Amino acid sequence: MELRKDPITRSWVVVGHPDEVPAAPEACPLCPGNEGGRATLLTLPSGGSWQVRVFPHLNPLYRIEGDPGRQAEGIYDRMRPIGAHEVIVETPDHNLSLAQMTDEQIDLVLTAYMQRIQDLKRDPRFKYVAVFKNRGALAGEEWPHSHSQVTATTFVPRRILYELRSAREWYAEKERCVFCDIVRQEEKQGKRIVDTQGDFVALCPYASRVPYEVWLLRRKHNYLFEQPPPGTNNRNLAALLGRMLRRLGKIAQAYHLVVHTAPNTGSPKGEVLNYWKTIADDYHWHIEILPIVQTRSKSYSIKEVYFNALVPEEAAERLRQLDPTA
Amino acid sequence: MELRKDPITRSWVVVGHPDEVPAAPEACPLCPGNEGGRATLLTLPSGGSWQVRVFPHLNPLYRIEGDPGRQAEGIYDRMRPIGAHEVIVETPDHNLSLAQMTDEQIDLVLTAYMQRIQDLKRDPRFKYVAVFKNRGALAGEEWPHSHSQVTATTFVPRRILYELRSAREWYAEKERCVFCDIVRQEEKQGKRIVDTQGDFVALCPYASRVPYEVWLLRRKHNYLFEQPPPGTNNRNLAALLGRMLRRLGKIAQAYHLVVHTAPNTGSPKGEVLNYWKTIADDYHWHIEILPIVQTRSKSYSIKEVYFNALVPEEAAERLRQLDPTA
Repeated sequence: MELRKDPITRSWVVVGHPDEVPAAPEACPLCPGNEGGRATLLTLPSGGSWQVRVFPHLNPLYRIEGDPGRQAEGIYDRMRPIGAHEVIVETPDHNLSLAQMTDEQIDLVLTAYMQRIQDLKRDPRFKYVAVFKNRGALAGEEWPHSHSQVTATTFVPRRILYELRSAREWYAEKERCVFCDIVRQEEKQGKRIVDTQGDFVALCPYASRVPYEVWLLRRKHNYLFEQPPPGTNNRNLAALLGRMLRRLGKIAQAYHLVVHTAPNTGSPKGEVLNYWKTIADDYHWHIEILPIVQTRSKSYSIKEVYFNALVPEEAAERLRQLDPTA
Repeated sequence: MELRKDPITRSWVVVGHPDEVPAAPEACPLCPGNEGGRATLLTLPSGGSWQVRVFPHLNPLYRIEGDPGRQAEGIYDRMRPIGAHEVIVETPDHNLSLAQMTDEQIDLVLTAYMQRIQDLKRDPRFKYVAVFKNRGALAGEEWPHSHSQVTATTFVPRRILYELRSAREWYAEKERCVFCDIVRQEEKQGKRIVDTQGDFVALCPYASRVPYEVWLLRRKHNYLFEQPPPGTNNRNLAALLGRMLRRLGKIAQAYHLVVHTAPNTGSPKGEVLNYWKTIADDYHWHIEILPIVQTRSKSYSIKEVYFNALVPEEAAERLRQLDPTA
């Protein structure tokens, strides 16, 4: 596999065949006792039996070892698919959904999100760490056992890049964070706010792309999801998320959930790692939830990083060999 | 219905309920004799019985009359969904697919594409005219009778906007069209080219988003699909497209086809209508074909204009009323 950059849209595409993996085991690989020989990256709470467990993805899109080896191919750009791809098992209970969990358990899941982002951002090769959850078959869920996924990539995904650019231009013009402006207008108008708790608000965005799209934001400015300001009570965010998922569960059986946080801006030693220098002021983390209410999805795609199992040269070769006359 | 702009990604979303339309008739509304009282916008060839026919969409996303009425709502932007939404019936034969047609018939279909784009661009309200085709149930086809669709919008769709921006930045730096650079490199390397005829080439792009993605381009620079330079033989393009679709038909039963041409840059009187002034040099029309080979589409969405039937205020109200405790 390799990463290729689209010279027009500038998005990176994972191209090629994934490595062969052993056939899926009969037993759920996410259940306690079925860990096999797989490494454990994190368990919560520390000590005792785990309530949340993180391990490397069984069939990863990205590999952790090596250098990206960025290079040109004529006018094109490519690099090796270096990165991390992890699975966060949200509960030892095979049948418990995130919506059914206690606030305390959801808080542990969010803590695992934060700790994995913090840990992966210590690696200066990684420009972005994404946490997302595909729930339900229509959302492309890989296992029914409740879980989320983490990817760390050597590039900032296209959707995040567009957000950063827009937010920066807004800030450059108005010297205000666009997300803070959104929260202020929504709190003033009230009509698109669904629920609030403590520092956090849940709302249906003005230009929702799908029915019942919901965003969770911190009311006050904060660009790093993984670093709540001192005094933040994350149990409030957990409770708000739980209530939101129980509401949405009455409407849709499948959803995408994506954490949007700032890219990796600095190493532990304080160097600036990329050119996103001002995001402390102009970016604002949020969680996007996109329920799937239509069986024939009309328009929306959550992944802005494409994965294409067929190398274009092979596609062209096979197409050339096909009879074009009938 | 109304158009709302996402302040983060800057894409426009059609929000709200479409007008009630009569239940779908039993008989195919695209077959000759079933035109009902619907207006005909174009028939080809002129005179005699039609081989290609264009009429307004039965359930349009956009309405032709009126002014967009652009206005702010606090920090947000909205406007009325003014535009055109048309159906191009590609053949009177209910069972004939585009891939099965003669080069002559495909040429007529492409001529209808060009004439509708030219005609709609005479309306200075319309900033962009899109022509696309969803073939097969997996692609969201509305009727099995072979047809394409045309939309004219008061804004440039996001995907085209990103293309234009990238192409302009490439041109600003290199004083070369990025698409011309792509054609040159592909012709030199050969390995991703599938087929050629006359002035036209069909290739699998370097960073293909889906297996067997194919682009058709003119080899020499040309930014307007609807205005071929004098001496162009469009029968060559028709023949190349027919061969390509027959090849792809052996691999996938469904595909999206999208014509990418330049936005509406000038009125018949020659005024510049928007800020896309240099696209004659930096943009290059092309046709993108995206076959659907996976039943569970992993990542790709062709429509960059979202349509959301549920107004976010209603979504928030319904969600507020749902019990969040169980």
